[in-house]
Amino acid sequence: MGKNRKRLIQAAMGEIPCDLTIRNIQYVNVFTGEIYPAQVDVIDGYVARVREAGEEAEQPAAEIVDGEGNYLIPGFVDTHVHVESSMLIPENFSRAVIPWGTTAVCTDPHEIANVLGIDGVKFMLENASRSALRQYVLAPSCVPAVPGLECSGAEFGEEEIGEILDMDHVVGVAELMDYVGVCRGSERMYRIMEKGLEKGAYLQGHGPLLGGRELSAYRAAGAESDHESETAEEIQEKLRRGMHINLRASSLANHMDQLAAGVRRIPYHDFISICTDDVHAGDLLSSGHINRVVRCAIENGLEPVDVIRMATLNGAREYGFKELGAVAPGYAADMQLVRALDGSQPERVWIAGKTVAVKGQYVGEDEGQPIDFPNTVKTSWIAGAEDLALTVDGPEREAAVNVIVPVDGGNIFRRAEVQKLPVRDGRVCLDSREDLAFVCVINRHGRRNKTVAVFQNFGLKKGAVGTTVSHDSHNVVIVYKKEEDGCRLLRELERMGGGLCVVEDGQVTGKVALPAAGLMSAGSCQEAAGEFETYRRAFYRVCRPETPLLSCAIMSLTALPEIVVTDCGLVDGGRQEFIPVFPGRE
Amino acid sequence: MGKNRKRLIQAAMGEIPCDLTIRNIQYVNVFTGEIYPAQVDVIDGYVARVREAGEEAEQPAAEIVDGEGNYLIPGFVDTHVHVESSMLIPENFSRAVIPWGTTAVCTDPHEIANVLGIDGVKFMLENASRSALRQYVLAPSCVPAVPGLECSGAEFGEEEIGEILDMDHVVGVAELMDYVGVCRGSERMYRIMEKGLEKGAYLQGHGPLLGGRELSAYRAAGAESDHESETAEEIQEKLRRGMHINLRASSLANHMDQLAAGVRRIPYHDFISICTDDVHAGDLLSSGHINRVVRCAIENGLEPVDVIRMATLNGAREYGFKELGAVAPGYAADMQLVRALDGSQPERVWIAGKTVAVKGQYVGEDEGQPIDFPNTVKTSWIAGAEDLALTVDGPEREAAVNVIVPVDGGNIFRRAEVQKLPVRDGRVCLDSREDLAFVCVINRHGRRNKTVAVFQNFGLKKGAVGTTVSHDSHNVVIVYKKEEDGCRLLRELERMGGGLCVVEDGQVTGKVALPAAGLMSAGSCQEAAGEFETYRRAFYRVCRPETPLLSCAIMSLTALPEIVVTDCGLVDGGRQEFIPVFPGRE
Repeated sequence: MGKNRKRLIQAAMGEIPCDLTIRNIQYVNVFTGEIYPAQVDVIDGYVARVREAGEEAEQPAAEIVDGEGNYLIPGFVDTHVHVESSMLIPENFSRAVIPWGTTAVCTDPHEIANVLGIDGVKFMLENASRSALRQYVLAPSCVPAVPGLECSGAEFGEEEIGEILDMDHVVGVAELMDYVGVCRGSERMYRIMEKGLEKGAYLQGHGPLLGGRELSAYRAAGAESDHESETAEEIQEKLRRGMHINLRASSLANHMDQLAAGVRRIPYHDFISICTDDVHAGDLLSSGHINRVVRCAIENGLEPVDVIRMATLNGAREYGFKELGAVAPGYAADMQLVRALDGSQPERVWIAGKTVAVKGQYVGEDEGQPIDFPNTVKTSWIAGAEDLALTVDGPEREAAVNVIVPVDGGNIFRRAEVQKLPVRDGRVCLDSREDLAFVCVINRHGRRNKTVAVFQNFGLKKGAVGTTVSHDSHNVVIVYKKEEDGCRLLRELERMGGGLCVVEDGQVTGKVALPAAGLMSAGSCQEAAGEFETYRRAFYRVCRPETPLLSCAIMSLTALPEIVVTDCGLVDGGRQEFIPVFPGRE
Repeated sequence: MGKNRKRLIQAAMGEIPCDLTIRNIQYVNVFTGEIYPAQVDVIDGYVARVREAGEEAEQPAAEIVDGEGNYLIPGFVDTHVHVESSMLIPENFSRAVIPWGTTAVCTDPHEIANVLGIDGVKFMLENASRSALRQYVLAPSCVPAVPGLECSGAEFGEEEIGEILDMDHVVGVAELMDYVGVCRGSERMYRIMEKGLEKGAYLQGHGPLLGGRELSAYRAAGAESDHESETAEEIQEKLRRGMHINLRASSLANHMDQLAAGVRRIPYHDFISICTDDVHAGDLLSSGHINRVVRCAIENGLEPVDVIRMATLNGAREYGFKELGAVAPGYAADMQLVRALDGSQPERVWIAGKTVAVKGQYVGEDEGQPIDFPNTVKTSWIAGAEDLALTVDGPEREAAVNVIVPVDGGNIFRRAEVQKLPVRDGRVCLDSREDLAFVCVINRHGRRNKTVAVFQNFGLKKGAVGTTVSHDSHNVVIVYKKEEDGCRLLRELERMGGGLCVVEDGQVTGKVALPAAGLMSAGSCQEAAGEFETYRRAFYRVCRPETPLLSCAIMSLTALPEIVVTDCGLVDGGRQEFIPVFPGRE
């Protein structure tokens, strides 16, 4: 940051003029919880002094902003977020979240790391460096998430983690998702953690439903935080073990009523911060970022100043950021002017003393440069529609197939059920079964792996839907009735360099281009959200309304204790083992 | 510490037996503020697990201790202490404070650094390493305290600070006492702070009565804490600026009523910790260490669990010690069993899972080894009594002398007053004035500097008193009626290698030997306190009861805005300049 302490001291002493004074504000002091009238003096991007009523500046600042009696609070700190989930590259993510008052984020580039490895992490860092948002990175600890059951584009061991930890702006090891491995003495996880601890890094945790001895083992291993709590009891137990709690409300999960109840059980909140984890472009555009979680926490009865403290100072302390999270002498001048302490959009946002947003509009100076993204969808080895067929050796007219069957109304929880399906010309044929569709998962990282399976009640009425966003390895997932539609869709994904796509009657009717690693758009939040909306409409012309829009994206998620499909085969996630597509034939 | 995380994880999971279980306790959870029944499992010196009611151990521990329903709390952390003030060397300090529940201290070896420089700091570290107490060291920032007005045994600039910061167990830069220099842009202080920040060190503050723009400048410069507050307003203002507040009750200062009032003004206490600063051996023996400050805070109305949190977790977080300050998985097993949450002596104390004290008795395994201290009292260049005379050139029978005159009942606040005094054989003679005594300050660090002055109403009735403990340069200070008595005392100080001494009727009648740098005893706390008590009685046979026992020790304290005497001359501390002993003659 290039802090010139001499000038800062001189400015605080009134010996030299400041760059900026913000007057006529209700200053929210996150250290003490007090709110009082004050004036904030800034020089070289840092706060020099917060003058209380009656203290006059010795020399007028170059710029004086009238706060019009609004509240001045620090910029928000997101303690755990995957930028890729917004489908925006870091610089566009920056422009999207800053108008909502977020000024610093701690990101886990886990998704791009699974596609591009260390180069992906470097891309995120490099692109983030063009933005005004302070973007800190944590080294993804679980690449791939579950080795052996799928093939991603990279594999991180202790060496890669060490290499990443040595990069600028890298501040820790990202969520230790393999908590089972940690508790059971996984050598790989153990070495990754040791590497992190050796380098003095913060170890971020991820322990859904973890309690009792497993939680103790996980904490003792070094995991310092958790953002997965869904109940008041979980919050309480994790706080008792000394974990930092990152209160989360994402596009995928929001249990704030329970979380708020947990927080209210405990008088001390200094180990509680705020995170978003995964927020889609559309949600960013319509309802915000950290401010949305703040709003939600306040609506659930938590005290506004306390929640603001969590979203600022507590988050910064969790990471040991000594210059962030407060508006106080020596702190970075990252701050926002808000009409009310309720998580609504700020009137104005500053980062390092520069105005970066006014009334919801980003006004920072950084401009996007065209980026030449390498195409990461390496699936040209699929020659044509015939490669997407589910083929059977031999002359049989019928085959027993392990069909994936949802066990509730949605299609996330599912089991395998053996069904006899007709075979024509050596291919399983679904023409007679409207409730079935093919699922094909194709490796896009350079291996010639693919799996074709059958899914019951996915909700596909015709055509095909597919994506290159598919946790955690981000291989291509296509769901289709006819192989030709599936192939048409694959070719479009290749052409776009990745994305989301819908094919109806042989035509592409909806798509979102995600050329950055097949995960992120090149466009702004508005553009990405707009494209996504068009895609959504096309999706629901070929799928029933009950089908979750992101069904394809979690088709391969081996961390789920369900039946999933990876490029390597059909997987029972609960048992962490393969099951055959054709039972009894392999 | 050599933490074996694999074994820790296995112990938490119940796969291997623990070394120690403490059962039947009321567990005080400093993270949540809750108190509940629990059992604590320890392995390899770390806590593996805290089992709540109903959770059984899978395997019994090697040792099981019955807590008899007492409270289990973490060991106390002292966030600012000068070990030398106890007159004990670090290993004996350790044995003295552990039975009171202190398990970690952050020390400023400022006193010994002024005598022995970096070698002094190394001695403190080396000797501390023999002890069970976790002793962290901060690099003394103001050696000498006020350059130019006195000659100490060392001078620390950025290079020395850097060298110390690179040593093991050194965790920061110690109290930036030259706050005036910091605010006024002192190049020396600036460079010392930059060196600390460059090495990621914690910068400890010291800002008595600092407020307004000076406080902002001091905070912006990087000073993170303060332990000098004496009023509720100071506490509040410093907390508002984001400073860590170290609540202090020392042998010299106790303003806990005011401090507690300040704490009660603010709802958040996570930036508040506890320190002792200076505690004498006698006080350590009779009333304790951090527990005494805890007791005092509770007596002044603060909530017990909250104060215990300050004395443990908050202090550890202030320094970024991630394994200290709590009894929780992965934390060092530093803990104490107490009958009540009131700061009274613990029933039992553990450090790294080993019992180190039981009912006030130290039971650790470390034993003192004889130490060969180098004699630091280099005053043999004072040939005899004649060198302690206040001599006047020329034949005058009378001389105008700047006499030091206390302005209140004590002798700390004082001014200079010109008085005509008789001269006999070229020496100022005090025979006719019972209210006067000579003060001589003699450099003991290798320079042939000395100053003889006259003090009114010191309270010396006869003989001489003197010391090698004399802040901040620790030169020899002797107060005497007759030069012969002064010289007798000096020779005894030389013989002892430093200490405190009383001479009456030509005989040494009281003394405390402080062979470690002329500051610390070689004996235990009991021995040092016993010697000191004998000295005290001898002191009050030659001095009036109003004379503070430590008058000599602050005779040279140039930081006081009073008239003081250093080896270089008579000094007006308020103006930070010399004044002549004989006005008009120099």
